[in-house]
Amino acid sequence: MANTSAPRADKATQSSPSTPIPIPPGSVGFVTPQIIGFDEPLHLTSGQVLPQYELAVETYGELNADRSNAVLICHALNASHHVAGMSVDNPRDVGWWDNMVGPGKPVDTDRYFVIGVNNIGSCFGSTGPASVNPATGKPWGAAFPVLTVEDWVRAQARLADYFGIDCFAAVMGGSLGGMQALSWAITCPERLRHCIVIASTPRLSAQNIGFNEVARRAIINDPDFHGGDYYEHGVVPAHGLSVARMIGHITYLSDETMAERFGRQQREPGTNGAFHYGYDVEFEVESYLRYQGEKFSRYFDANTYLLITRALDYFDPSRNYGGDLAKALEPAKADFLLVSFTTDWRFSPERSREIVKALLKNKTAVTYAEIDAPHGHDAFLLDDARYHAVVQGYFDRIAASLELPKRRLTTGVLA
Amino acid sequence: MANTSAPRADKATQSSPSTPIPIPPGSVGFVTPQIIGFDEPLHLTSGQVLPQYELAVETYGELNADRSNAVLICHALNASHHVAGMSVDNPRDVGWWDNMVGPGKPVDTDRYFVIGVNNIGSCFGSTGPASVNPATGKPWGAAFPVLTVEDWVRAQARLADYFGIDCFAAVMGGSLGGMQALSWAITCPERLRHCIVIASTPRLSAQNIGFNEVARRAIINDPDFHGGDYYEHGVVPAHGLSVARMIGHITYLSDETMAERFGRQQREPGTNGAFHYGYDVEFEVESYLRYQGEKFSRYFDANTYLLITRALDYFDPSRNYGGDLAKALEPAKADFLLVSFTTDWRFSPERSREIVKALLKNKTAVTYAEIDAPHGHDAFLLDDARYHAVVQGYFDRIAASLELPKRRLTTGVLA
Repeated sequence: MANTSAPRADKATQSSPSTPIPIPPGSVGFVTPQIIGFDEPLHLTSGQVLPQYELAVETYGELNADRSNAVLICHALNASHHVAGMSVDNPRDVGWWDNMVGPGKPVDTDRYFVIGVNNIGSCFGSTGPASVNPATGKPWGAAFPVLTVEDWVRAQARLADYFGIDCFAAVMGGSLGGMQALSWAITCPERLRHCIVIASTPRLSAQNIGFNEVARRAIINDPDFHGGDYYEHGVVPAHGLSVARMIGHITYLSDETMAERFGRQQREPGTNGAFHYGYDVEFEVESYLRYQGEKFSRYFDANTYLLITRALDYFDPSRNYGGDLAKALEPAKADFLLVSFTTDWRFSPERSREIVKALLKNKTAVTYAEIDAPHGHDAFLLDDARYHAVVQGYFDRIAASLELPKRRLTTGVLA
Repeated sequence: MANTSAPRADKATQSSPSTPIPIPPGSVGFVTPQIIGFDEPLHLTSGQVLPQYELAVETYGELNADRSNAVLICHALNASHHVAGMSVDNPRDVGWWDNMVGPGKPVDTDRYFVIGVNNIGSCFGSTGPASVNPATGKPWGAAFPVLTVEDWVRAQARLADYFGIDCFAAVMGGSLGGMQALSWAITCPERLRHCIVIASTPRLSAQNIGFNEVARRAIINDPDFHGGDYYEHGVVPAHGLSVARMIGHITYLSDETMAERFGRQQREPGTNGAFHYGYDVEFEVESYLRYQGEKFSRYFDANTYLLITRALDYFDPSRNYGGDLAKALEPAKADFLLVSFTTDWRFSPERSREIVKALLKNKTAVTYAEIDAPHGHDAFLLDDARYHAVVQGYFDRIAASLELPKRRLTTGVLA
């Protein structure tokens, strides 16, 4: 059974900082996470059992009387429960999908009750490899179980129970978050009306797995990794994690975006633009990638990186159906929205179309938008008018079908 | 002036092993490299000077009386002077472009005198970071100068002098080798009749540089790198070099090839195909990449990897012409053959077309073939009938224009 180890904010988790700071229009304002504890063991796909766990959660908007307006937002590799608004402790810490979620935004918190949850195994407040293993009193480290997308969905379903939500208006995510939405539709078909899968894939390709594996080797080979038990050595495998992030980062951007943002621009050219002929930073793109890698290695947990890339590798709902995705999707009762981006070479439009085709084969209702955007995989996080119009239009239709209040047009981002 | 520190084989470098081993049809047979020493200092693009150096060289076929039938083959990142035939010490060590070069093959050694040369900075016999620095008596290590494509061309031009070759029938290369061919056409326009540039690019993109930089960070961050002076510590940065190779390898293969060769195939599945839920090898593609990485780290020098990726980054003949490639190519007098491969996402056909357009703008004679091949960047090394037919046809035209002997049709691979 669920219990709350931190008091739940009555009116979701919006709150205020001590000194007044202006709240931008369309923002949910200041937010504080809740930590919700679950003492019932979670039986995992691997056969292992997580005896107990906590989930870090943020909510925005209000759950309506018949609890029909809840939307679950699932995060991708390096994100968290902090989906929208400004952290009360740090107003500059804006949620990762703040352009998508807020009053008048595509996922309109005037109408929907939105839940952001940090997955178990992550490192932003939910139980993960850096948490204390109750069996040893030390950080889990290498002993933390390997998780799957289905495990996350099971944990999220318990969170829905905790909030008294029998059926989500929508479960939604981009990239790995889209896999979770897809898994919800398959494994909990009665518990969501709409499944929104953005910039995702029904399964990783060999190339995708290859990049994940290189990233993992970089981490595991770092002498500061200590077999995953680096916490007790007071170090982190920062070099390995940095290299892993650099690899990932390249795959999130399109070749076009990188050409436009960096091209062959030199960082600090010598006299008359001369090169320095060495292995220090010479080009802007090197500086950018090193910076991203180093920044990431300061806030992200290396074991979490291993765990989440592995969950990505394992995800393949068609696996138990001889690769037949339509067969795997047969249990789904939700309507679907799929969105992909033309320059996303990590999870290309072709991968989304595989899902669309399987749904059409099953005569499942599906809306599909292929957005011509230059930003590669990262496009799903960015503020693109056509993309947001598609999502907003879809949520308007959900609201109409559920007879939710009309959108307040004065705050509508597209008004 | 050039001097020979090892005796030159009169009839090129074909030789025989002690026990008879059958020579496959179309093979140049057994080959032995020559080491050729140059005592005249080489002034480098960086401003540094390499006081002396040696080049490892193999040759195939015979130089004709008017020395008009010479072809220089330039190698890419991890290849060498061993272009064709079988090493006399190890018959299984077949040259990296053996399918392209040999009697009756596209570059027909019955008609052409072919030179394969290991570039300075490399690690297969030519002077490089692992060589002894005459100033210290210790391996060069980190003190070895950073080189450019233009430096290699300068060294290769001296090799041409050594052989008494004023003008090559063709200078040819794939990938980084194609950059060297392009640089020959620009910097030594009188010394080649034909320039053959395969699966190459006029300059790296930000994405290309990004992948190189990640690879370099993996090597430099390896504690066994010791700032480049690992030789004296009796270690090599094997982990870093292995990760670097894994990254590179993914970029050489197309998504399609990886899907076809590995897909999501498991390496050693558990009962009923179960996953193992851990970070050891789970998928075939992981096993393959690890194997390739480890193998590479046993035979390749990490400093050479840094040096060659940096030379790739720096190459940009348009740089001194405000990015105007046509302007940069104006000095070229050679005729050109360009070949690209549809699934090459490292150096895509679009990059070759940039060169073709610049040449057309200059009214330079250029033949261009875009080969529909599934193998990605690696396609330039593979035996593809249409690709080889294009190259063979082009060399037949060169032979006709030079009045070289007719192809011996009995050994023609396409006969």
